[in-house]
Amino acid sequence: MNNRKFISVIGASQASASELALAEAAGKEIAHAGAVLVCGGMGGVMEAACRGAKSVGGTTIGILPGNHRGEGNPYLDFPIASGVGHARNVAVVKTGQAVIAVGGSYGTLTEIGYALNAGLPVIGLESWTISRKGRGKCPIISATTPAEAVKMALEMID
Amino acid sequence: MNNRKFISVIGASQASASELALAEAAGKEIAHAGAVLVCGGMGGVMEAACRGAKSVGGTTIGILPGNHRGEGNPYLDFPIASGVGHARNVAVVKTGQAVIAVGGSYGTLTEIGYALNAGLPVIGLESWTISRKGRGKCPIISATTPAEAVKMALEMID
Amino acid sequence: MNNRKFISVIGASQASASELALAEAAGKEIAHAGAVLVCGGMGGVMEAACRGAKSVGGTTIGILPGNHRGEGNPYLDFPIASGVGHARNVAVVKTGQAVIAVGGSYGTLTEIGYALNAGLPVIGLESWTISRKGRGKCPIISATTPAEAVKMALEMID
Amino acid sequence: MNNRKFISVIGASQASASELALAEAAGKEIAHAGAVLVCGGMGGVMEAACRGAKSVGGTTIGILPGNHRGEGNPYLDFPIASGVGHARNVAVVKTGQAVIAVGGSYGTLTEIGYALNAGLPVIGLESWTISRKGRGKCPIISATTPAEAVKMALEMID
Repeated sequence: MNNRKFISVIGASQASASELALAEAAGKEIAHAGAVLVCGGMGGVMEAACRGAKSVGGTTIGILPGNHRGEGNPYLDFPIASGVGHARNVAVVKTGQAVIAVGGSYGTLTEIGYALNAGLPVIGLESWTISRKGRGKCPIISATTPAEAVKMALEMID
Repeated sequence: MNNRKFISVIGASQASASELALAEAAGKEIAHAGAVLVCGGMGGVMEAACRGAKSVGGTTIGILPGNHRGEGNPYLDFPIASGVGHARNVAVVKTGQAVIAVGGSYGTLTEIGYALNAGLPVIGLESWTISRKGRGKCPIISATTPAEAVKMALEMID
Repeated sequence: MNNRKFISVIGASQASASELALAEAAGKEIAHAGAVLVCGGMGGVMEAACRGAKSVGGTTIGILPGNHRGEGNPYLDFPIASGVGHARNVAVVKTGQAVIAVGGSYGTLTEIGYALNAGLPVIGLESWTISRKGRGKCPIISATTPAEAVKMALEMID
Repeated sequence: MNNRKFISVIGASQASASELALAEAAGKEIAHAGAVLVCGGMGGVMEAACRGAKSVGGTTIGILPGNHRGEGNPYLDFPIASGVGHARNVAVVKTGQAVIAVGGSYGTLTEIGYALNAGLPVIGLESWTISRKGRGKCPIISATTPAEAVKMALEMID
């Protein structure tokens, strides 16, 4: 099997300029490290991350919600037409070995939940803070830069 | 079509005694109101809510993760064998018209994300608090008792 | 748990008049027998079967492909919004204990495959014939009338 | 986007020696043609096709039923952990632009149904024959050798 590391980048399809910049930089770092970038394949954070990765010759997988391989962003090497809608969020995180959340929509929240449930490391860049009274915070590791986020992700993959 | 209201109850399969008591009471209130209880069909909060509903003659639907209709808790009138694992969390919330979260695991977090994404009202009983810097909190409406949670849910369904 | 029998009726959303008549009669027989009718919840064969069941006071479950509980036919007691598109075909058959195929589209073919794979009895009314050289035919049991199909289905459920 | 062609190879995880030989040869031809091989990622026909492709330096994607990226066969470049069980059969065919069925189990039947429903070309090597009275046969194009099957698949992709 491929012994490259797989890192999922999650975030909203409608994102702020600052989130897009973080995602693009994260994608670049992932590619520089020789890792494979996994994402949901659509626009916003997903597209920015893929654009970053491809700008330096990286490899990108987009697990699309719909039935058509062409529906994704233009920076996908391997578009996967899941056909299962937002239920593909499960696959987006489980196909990676660590997850980087950039900003985040409610969809990102589902992906964080699935990742934590599967015991995958989740690193956040300006992402959600989640807690329950008496239980403390969810273990989303906060990074301050995309480079730090990718470095953490790589170190947490065995 | 059925004009009864459908309310989803979400929460962990491993829950505290206090969460189980809240879930059972919520199930009872849902049944008393003539609404249909929808859940993930397994143990813990799901089972307690179903037990509550059935104790007063209510109707229960359990959307199971696995492939076998018999894998659910013993209080299901209509077990749905989804076969799609945790991706069935999408269906658990979208089959309801409002969602009551009791306590909560990471799986519950995915369900809250899907519900908010779909614009469904989410009412929490000792559940997650979720926020993003500069964006404020996710609109999880906090209820103090199961009766209040069910009353709110019913009022928010058109 | 509910000790009523659950029978899935599968078939195309675009069906001939003769298929619709078969489906409606099958739905009626299922309801008469006190069994619960499970289907994909949409039009054509699914709607005809539900209409038949409801005309005699039966109970109907529709496992919908989309995200909206209101998208199904008007004869559903329990619409399930699966959100997973045609992947819900798995759930349509596995939620039943026996499957009756009326006519059939390519979608019906996927449901027959899932049902046979799960070891569920499949009874056909003017449906597919499937074979492999040297292996013989798939065990789709041919019935000549809706009443016979439902009788067979009930007998094959333990 | 990647302008390589994507071809799905489908078939049983328990296959005969002759089916495995056909699958391995098909995988080799796909790789020789510079196309990407997509499959369900598990054993039998899927593994043989991947082994063939990798033996000549091809690229392989395996869309796995389960939640673990490591559960697939050892010849996968890009394992996708779908988490949705057999519902991943939708993705296996829709991620390809043409489908080659080698032999076949009931699972293969579901994939053929999904492919035909999506309008994808399906080429069979010792696979299912499917018909309905008065409607004729399903358009599964019969090939006599793996080389012919792959040649047909490539020609049918725009």
